[in-house]
Amino acid sequence: MTTRYGYLGPEGTFTQMALQSWVTAHEDGPDAAGTGEQVPFGSVDQALDALRRSEIDAAMVPIENSVEGGVSATLDALASGDPLVVTGEVNVPITFVLAARAGMPLADVRSVGTHSHAWAQVRGWMDAHLPAATYVPTLSTAAAAAGLGDAGGSDGGRAAYDAAVCAPVAATNHGLTVLATDIGDRVGAVTRFVLVARPGALPERTGADKTTVMLFQRDDRAGGLLELLEQFAVRGINMTRLESRPTKESLGSYCFSIDFEGHVWDERVGEALMGLKRVCAEVRFLGSYPREDGAQVEVAPLTTDEDFAGARAWLTSLRRG
Amino acid sequence: MTTRYGYLGPEGTFTQMALQSWVTAHEDGPDAAGTGEQVPFGSVDQALDALRRSEIDAAMVPIENSVEGGVSATLDALASGDPLVVTGEVNVPITFVLAARAGMPLADVRSVGTHSHAWAQVRGWMDAHLPAATYVPTLSTAAAAAGLGDAGGSDGGRAAYDAAVCAPVAATNHGLTVLATDIGDRVGAVTRFVLVARPGALPERTGADKTTVMLFQRDDRAGGLLELLEQFAVRGINMTRLESRPTKESLGSYCFSIDFEGHVWDERVGEALMGLKRVCAEVRFLGSYPREDGAQVEVAPLTTDEDFAGARAWLTSLRRG
Amino acid sequence: MTTRYGYLGPEGTFTQMALQSWVTAHEDGPDAAGTGEQVPFGSVDQALDALRRSEIDAAMVPIENSVEGGVSATLDALASGDPLVVTGEVNVPITFVLAARAGMPLADVRSVGTHSHAWAQVRGWMDAHLPAATYVPTLSTAAAAAGLGDAGGSDGGRAAYDAAVCAPVAATNHGLTVLATDIGDRVGAVTRFVLVARPGALPERTGADKTTVMLFQRDDRAGGLLELLEQFAVRGINMTRLESRPTKESLGSYCFSIDFEGHVWDERVGEALMGLKRVCAEVRFLGSYPREDGAQVEVAPLTTDEDFAGARAWLTSLRRG
Amino acid sequence: MTTRYGYLGPEGTFTQMALQSWVTAHEDGPDAAGTGEQVPFGSVDQALDALRRSEIDAAMVPIENSVEGGVSATLDALASGDPLVVTGEVNVPITFVLAARAGMPLADVRSVGTHSHAWAQVRGWMDAHLPAATYVPTLSTAAAAAGLGDAGGSDGGRAAYDAAVCAPVAATNHGLTVLATDIGDRVGAVTRFVLVARPGALPERTGADKTTVMLFQRDDRAGGLLELLEQFAVRGINMTRLESRPTKESLGSYCFSIDFEGHVWDERVGEALMGLKRVCAEVRFLGSYPREDGAQVEVAPLTTDEDFAGARAWLTSLRRG
Repeated sequence: MTTRYGYLGPEGTFTQMALQSWVTAHEDGPDAAGTGEQVPFGSVDQALDALRRSEIDAAMVPIENSVEGGVSATLDALASGDPLVVTGEVNVPITFVLAARAGMPLADVRSVGTHSHAWAQVRGWMDAHLPAATYVPTLSTAAAAAGLGDAGGSDGGRAAYDAAVCAPVAATNHGLTVLATDIGDRVGAVTRFVLVARPGALPERTGADKTTVMLFQRDDRAGGLLELLEQFAVRGINMTRLESRPTKESLGSYCFSIDFEGHVWDERVGEALMGLKRVCAEVRFLGSYPREDGAQVEVAPLTTDEDFAGARAWLTSLRRG
Repeated sequence: MTTRYGYLGPEGTFTQMALQSWVTAHEDGPDAAGTGEQVPFGSVDQALDALRRSEIDAAMVPIENSVEGGVSATLDALASGDPLVVTGEVNVPITFVLAARAGMPLADVRSVGTHSHAWAQVRGWMDAHLPAATYVPTLSTAAAAAGLGDAGGSDGGRAAYDAAVCAPVAATNHGLTVLATDIGDRVGAVTRFVLVARPGALPERTGADKTTVMLFQRDDRAGGLLELLEQFAVRGINMTRLESRPTKESLGSYCFSIDFEGHVWDERVGEALMGLKRVCAEVRFLGSYPREDGAQVEVAPLTTDEDFAGARAWLTSLRRG
Repeated sequence: MTTRYGYLGPEGTFTQMALQSWVTAHEDGPDAAGTGEQVPFGSVDQALDALRRSEIDAAMVPIENSVEGGVSATLDALASGDPLVVTGEVNVPITFVLAARAGMPLADVRSVGTHSHAWAQVRGWMDAHLPAATYVPTLSTAAAAAGLGDAGGSDGGRAAYDAAVCAPVAATNHGLTVLATDIGDRVGAVTRFVLVARPGALPERTGADKTTVMLFQRDDRAGGLLELLEQFAVRGINMTRLESRPTKESLGSYCFSIDFEGHVWDERVGEALMGLKRVCAEVRFLGSYPREDGAQVEVAPLTTDEDFAGARAWLTSLRRG
Repeated sequence: MTTRYGYLGPEGTFTQMALQSWVTAHEDGPDAAGTGEQVPFGSVDQALDALRRSEIDAAMVPIENSVEGGVSATLDALASGDPLVVTGEVNVPITFVLAARAGMPLADVRSVGTHSHAWAQVRGWMDAHLPAATYVPTLSTAAAAAGLGDAGGSDGGRAAYDAAVCAPVAATNHGLTVLATDIGDRVGAVTRFVLVARPGALPERTGADKTTVMLFQRDDRAGGLLELLEQFAVRGINMTRLESRPTKESLGSYCFSIDFEGHVWDERVGEALMGLKRVCAEVRFLGSYPREDGAQVEVAPLTTDEDFAGARAWLTSLRRG
């Protein structure tokens, strides 16, 4: 049966590139799903809602960017509603081009369309090369390219902007001319995408795993975040991402989206999660899954599964007297 | 001399409302600046750059929203470049209206323009009342309203969208008809704005103060965030906001934007800042300023200025032998 | 079968009073052992060695005094050799008398015999009333009394000292005259004794329990004691006694004898012990037993057995996917 | 003027050896005091009381032994009464001999006199070689030797015991025959002595210093010892000794005698002491003084005086605006 993958569309987004990368990497493996069917959605919310309604089997969505930070729409959509879990991750290098319809010289570009996150990442280039250009927000970088292409088709050239900032593939898809390449201000910018699914069998433990949780503090606990972080520290667990998000209840009320090294089947992770479960108002488990880079977790001394198993066996013997 | 205030424009934004609120509150006080001159800017960056170039005296910008979280553009603009400091804060309740040109019935609205943050806050209402409407991103909520008004004036009705989500004042400014009021999904949503200035004389200590810092971790320090938070905890200092932001160097490299209670002239705050200065790669001080709500800081036992002064006097006597 | 109890003798010591108190309290209970047989030993070591060789069934020994602190002989004897466990505790108020043979007036007392710990507790009284008296150390307070009595019988009055500091009962036992009562410098002084047995069935959990452990640090772990104490703190466990003892390997190398509230069958205690087992070079479990005062443990919020069981059930459900 | 040194006597104790070692090491130095006058006292209390009354200029007393642990009499005498400070330390290897009057063969020894701490350190040897010998407590090891010598002189041989456990020098002093050497159970046993003086000019900072304090907890502070230790940890300060002592108020009420690396003039030490002063009920400063071994303190990264001075200068600049 063909897997139905949703993604943050339209075609030509970096998200689709992430999904394509995922599918390619997994189509020959033991969990091979072929290239599956790829369904674009207009927003992260729409993709995850479709997943919750079982209209699709999995959804690829962006979760953080090395320049712009966490993707709020994804963090918030995972934090509420029916449970979903991350089952994998893909990191995609982000390279932007400036593209326009054929015949538009760079010097004539007076307005530029793109997604606000992309715009934030090319402002240095724009200030240097097109300081007078006005910015026109679009729903995605691919939509910016499509807008030029479509407009070109439909009404003889009248679009809301003269050029688009987008991925190279989007320029190609829409038959645009590339006026400039690699216009991102940060060399090496990366966006991390996650594949999300409904809860089910967990990805197997590989020794190179991450776990994602959303933690909600209790109102009545002093110490707060410090107390939560200690639950990781006393078990030697390393965090790789921490984002605060408003609980949306009131200003200054936060929850925390955290990625850390290890798998829920690791003893130290299990004990840390139990500790968090006790001290938090809510712990939302968002999955354990293999790191894309395959880097084995460096388990801190005295926190291996054997250490925990030995301690448990010892406790059992004590209790028996 | 008239104070020149910059703000995230155009006219009619929630930011301008914050600035107006600030000016009104302060025009009769000891630091009265009259209503000053109010200069809109197209982005937070542009406003703060103008401030750095001394073209304006202060800038009002949004820093966090109770629903959408931290405002990345502001956090990042304060985190780099020439130093700026926060000198005050204003909380503005956020209420959205759906506005259109005269004669447009709600039932005919097929597309809606607004800023992406506002769109995120009204999606529930939209799903319930205009499920088929498409979303058109704009640079601000006020720009969405302006787009309808201007378009109405310039070409007889042809705009990129049929209705705008904006502040009530923006609808009024542009002569639009309000189709629905209070359409935000969260009752009580609030955005917090900060008045930013070039470093100079600090606002006086009032006992109801906040301090804002940006902390950059050292790469070579295990413990990381936990170690930073302990610097607050051992001095009994309460944090009111914590946001992680990417350092933009690589995925997983973060800095932290933190608000905490107290003033840099408080002894406990001074010692905590010195501790952070030692253990961080960089501490960027972003100001001490009075809370808008005037709520006095509840100083934890044993951390008053008198406690610190007593301890210092004691140490001095020890050292003298 | 009669229980054979050893104790730190000779007859008339405070330790025997503790044992008598224990036996009286338990002879009618469900674990009634009658008054048993009571065997005095010359030292804590001798009593515990006899216990290890199964010559006796249990031994009553002092572990701490509210004035003089921990009893090193007991702490060290429990810390090495074949495992023993504490199965109960008895607190005995310590009141000293000055006793002499009939006919000796207080004014004629030129030397005083007693155990060095007792001497330390009556020095204030001695300085005030017998400033010129010399001190003669004895093996115990009861031995000091016995020395006067025996000497009186054997050689017509020639003893190594004129008066003894001892318990009232010891003066009575040896036919001495009490010259002064309640001569301890601290009103309310108390010695805590523990009943020690070979490992076997643990005393049942009562909700008013203590647990005793000896912790040996790893040489290679920075943080040291702080790291150990955090294992208690993160589970909300309250310590009631902490004594450092040299490991006897080198100056500055310590182990820690700790009493804390709770029973090894408590979930929070079990998890803390497992944590200690992992991070310590060695954890010597020295028993869980009911508090003598029956004071129920005030379990910190979020650390009840139900909290732990709920967290474990939740983890299990996560792992099942 | 001749310095008058008190010490825990009588002549021939390990304490006198420590004093002699100190005097020898310092008589040619810049603070040379010659060999001074050496005054034995019958107890630590008596020596320190004489010091408080200015009858002597300094007192050498034992503070900890690598086998027997802290010396309670010293810890308690420093913890109360008029302030005294430690100005130096001496470590003395402890070697015991068994000594008797001439003509007494080992096989005939039926009773052994010595100080209880010494007895504790030779029990293994005694069990192996003189299992039937009874123990007779004396006020010091030197007093045990003196007892044999004096008795031999005064009444033709009748003493309370047949042999003494003492330092080799004490046997020599009293004309005793050594029956066995090196009878301590622990090779390498060491006792650490401290030279105590009235508060005055502090010993200069050498970079190889220790500081000694006595900390009294507040009753109303949860966290307790953990909170105290964090004051050291956050400034990277290493403890070298921690002893709990009863406050003598009630069972389970402790104070803590702590040695740590560094001098009160070190910035990190000063800040830690101020933190302790705030959170403790009382901090009793007991001196900063050079380590006998001259081992330079390994200052933790980011806690040098320069780090602190840099942080303070930065804070000052912040406060100036």
